[in-house]
Amino acid sequence: MIQVDLSGAQRFFTQAGPDFAAVARAHDVLTSGSGLGADFTGWLHLPQKIKETELDRILAAADTIRSRSKALVVIGIGGSYLGARGAIELLRPVLGRGDPEIFFVGNGLSADALSDTIEKLGGRDFDVNVISKSGTTLEPAIAFRIFRELLDKKYGADAGKHIFATTDAHRGVLKSLADANGWESFVVPDDVGGRFSVFSAVGLLPMAVAGIDVRRVITAAIREFEALDMRSPENPAWQYAAARQNLYSKGYTVEILGCYEPSFRFMAEWWKQLYGESEGKDNKGILPASVEFTADLHSMGQYIQQGPRNLMESIVRFTHSRHAYPVPASDDNADGLDYIAGRDLAEICNVAAEAVREAHIDGGVPNIVINCSARDEEGLAELIGFFELACALSGYMSGVNPFDQPGVEAYKKNMFRMLGKPGAV
Amino acid sequence: MIQVDLSGAQRFFTQAGPDFAAVARAHDVLTSGSGLGADFTGWLHLPQKIKETELDRILAAADTIRSRSKALVVIGIGGSYLGARGAIELLRPVLGRGDPEIFFVGNGLSADALSDTIEKLGGRDFDVNVISKSGTTLEPAIAFRIFRELLDKKYGADAGKHIFATTDAHRGVLKSLADANGWESFVVPDDVGGRFSVFSAVGLLPMAVAGIDVRRVITAAIREFEALDMRSPENPAWQYAAARQNLYSKGYTVEILGCYEPSFRFMAEWWKQLYGESEGKDNKGILPASVEFTADLHSMGQYIQQGPRNLMESIVRFTHSRHAYPVPASDDNADGLDYIAGRDLAEICNVAAEAVREAHIDGGVPNIVINCSARDEEGLAELIGFFELACALSGYMSGVNPFDQPGVEAYKKNMFRMLGKPGAV
Repeated sequence: MIQVDLSGAQRFFTQAGPDFAAVARAHDVLTSGSGLGADFTGWLHLPQKIKETELDRILAAADTIRSRSKALVVIGIGGSYLGARGAIELLRPVLGRGDPEIFFVGNGLSADALSDTIEKLGGRDFDVNVISKSGTTLEPAIAFRIFRELLDKKYGADAGKHIFATTDAHRGVLKSLADANGWESFVVPDDVGGRFSVFSAVGLLPMAVAGIDVRRVITAAIREFEALDMRSPENPAWQYAAARQNLYSKGYTVEILGCYEPSFRFMAEWWKQLYGESEGKDNKGILPASVEFTADLHSMGQYIQQGPRNLMESIVRFTHSRHAYPVPASDDNADGLDYIAGRDLAEICNVAAEAVREAHIDGGVPNIVINCSARDEEGLAELIGFFELACALSGYMSGVNPFDQPGVEAYKKNMFRMLGKPGAV
Repeated sequence: MIQVDLSGAQRFFTQAGPDFAAVARAHDVLTSGSGLGADFTGWLHLPQKIKETELDRILAAADTIRSRSKALVVIGIGGSYLGARGAIELLRPVLGRGDPEIFFVGNGLSADALSDTIEKLGGRDFDVNVISKSGTTLEPAIAFRIFRELLDKKYGADAGKHIFATTDAHRGVLKSLADANGWESFVVPDDVGGRFSVFSAVGLLPMAVAGIDVRRVITAAIREFEALDMRSPENPAWQYAAARQNLYSKGYTVEILGCYEPSFRFMAEWWKQLYGESEGKDNKGILPASVEFTADLHSMGQYIQQGPRNLMESIVRFTHSRHAYPVPASDDNADGLDYIAGRDLAEICNVAAEAVREAHIDGGVPNIVINCSARDEEGLAELIGFFELACALSGYMSGVNPFDQPGVEAYKKNMFRMLGKPGAV
């Protein structure tokens, strides 16, 4: 299970400290389904409830794709994009021998980015996984038209065999298209919002194609959610949720999530959606930002150390490194590094992390450490389960509905009007 | 030249509006060299002053590397990393035929990331460009030890011919090593800080190896700095600097930089260092954050639309798209997209950008548009020149020294003590 270390935040808390009574109430409201947005709390049981037949079909589809294609094009945006990308970049930053390359499209409207992706795809055999609850979200819908055309050109009558649709179980444009054309399809559950959907087929199929062992992920996720059901201030999700709400009440309005593994970059993007979209409403919410350490110590480090004192910092640390890399010896010590020769880079990185933590706390930045066992399937499941539960608790503590996103309609309404969509006003 | 559009910020300004008298004073202080950190304002004349012989040597080195190697390993951190990476990802997001792949290392301490890069490098022929003013910064120094060892193993007595050092002209560990070993070396000018160094060999050599026409960049940069010397509220750098300081005075403490081109991601990281490190001190400074649109409309969009009203938004837009991509027609309009069939994706993206701008302004977010001609060498030079000048002006307006970074010493001091570096206390 995730271990949260609040010792670096202690001195910044209110006198009363984190409100564990409030987080306990939030937990009860969440699990009893009596809170705002209760219709969208199915993610709490997603790993337990995923049908064995569905998981078998996901794995079979992944095997098919891996055996015949050199690439998978994943079409999706937001919650149908960031979780899978975050997981794949974290666990599979290097393409393994025989692994298809995963391309993410339909998450923007740049003609240049689309052309670049098609150029990178080249003449490779590929499959398409289109992910959309409705099938009408503009970006993935446009990309799907374009890639259907490419599939038709390449595979003719067999094009449909290269399409895997992850969508609503019963209704919507994409579901209808899939049924009419006989595409294999997977389910986005009704009671799970996009940003909480990574443990469904939404995240699992791309992850499986990339070579991630999704059975291990699901097994670990079940264990993690069971462990996190603990009603106690020892619960790491309680600690994280209560700590950040306490700090927010004291004017720490920005949370910077950092990690010393560059492969974590898109997990931080997933986290930003999870927290930003869940909490950023009713004119409140902690601003989620992210940094990659140590690189950004030479970029945002100055701001963190001496800028406005409204920052809190949460650091994800992996207890175990995958690789060891000793600093080489030298003949002449010209660079003065012999004092660390032979020492492992991972150990040096841990020392640096401690040094940074101390410096930032001294500079007035509350620090939370989120310790994760390893950069593997279990670690991934732990992180996702932990962040999801803590997000829901934190959102309820702040009084918002953590499961809606009413604000994203504003630009869509303008856009459809400006584009002249039939019926748009 | 860059065009700044402040119309979306107008209603959020103080009654007096942006303080152009203050920005004029800042401009005078900057160009007369009478301000804080005046010893580090050489970047103002970097494009004009770069020696023709230095530029020739950079191009010759790039040609050598391009003709013999399949990869260039760039070792550097902060300002010796983000500018080149930002420029290369923006202009060369797809590896051209015959282009070496550019790997950036020495910008972190992750053993896993290092191992991954070495695995990706594989058995390819490669060269190394090590960039460090002193040669003693921990991350690049460790990486350089490791890659010297790899070069020695691969090239034996010829290893030194594969090393290009970009460093101080006269002193420092790396300069001494380069002289002693006969490595070709390039200059980081004395009067230019890392984050302002992209128009020196620091940025130019990696860019040239990646296939960017650096003569075009330099020519455009000279023109841009001349144009930006204008003493008038028409100066786009004045407009940007004065607008953001005005908004900051009204409580807009976070600036979100967005772009609709995913290839802009690392330019935004470069921008974060430029503004965060220049302005984030003395307990003040606008927090620089970034988003990639439209992807992040489905992530941070909710927060931007309805979260706390302390956000301003600056959007970089490229007037010309490189590619056209019409939305394909369909037989049955099952997805309901026929109303945009045949229309170019770039045009649709522009409509979306307008729709977003309108929605965010209505939601209470001041909007600044930074219009850049195109995603090419001239556009790159314009953006960099513009952002550098505006940053210096904005920093002086806020009363800080925009050219130092005293805060980054705190963690280094802890780290060297904890690592047991000789002489560290």
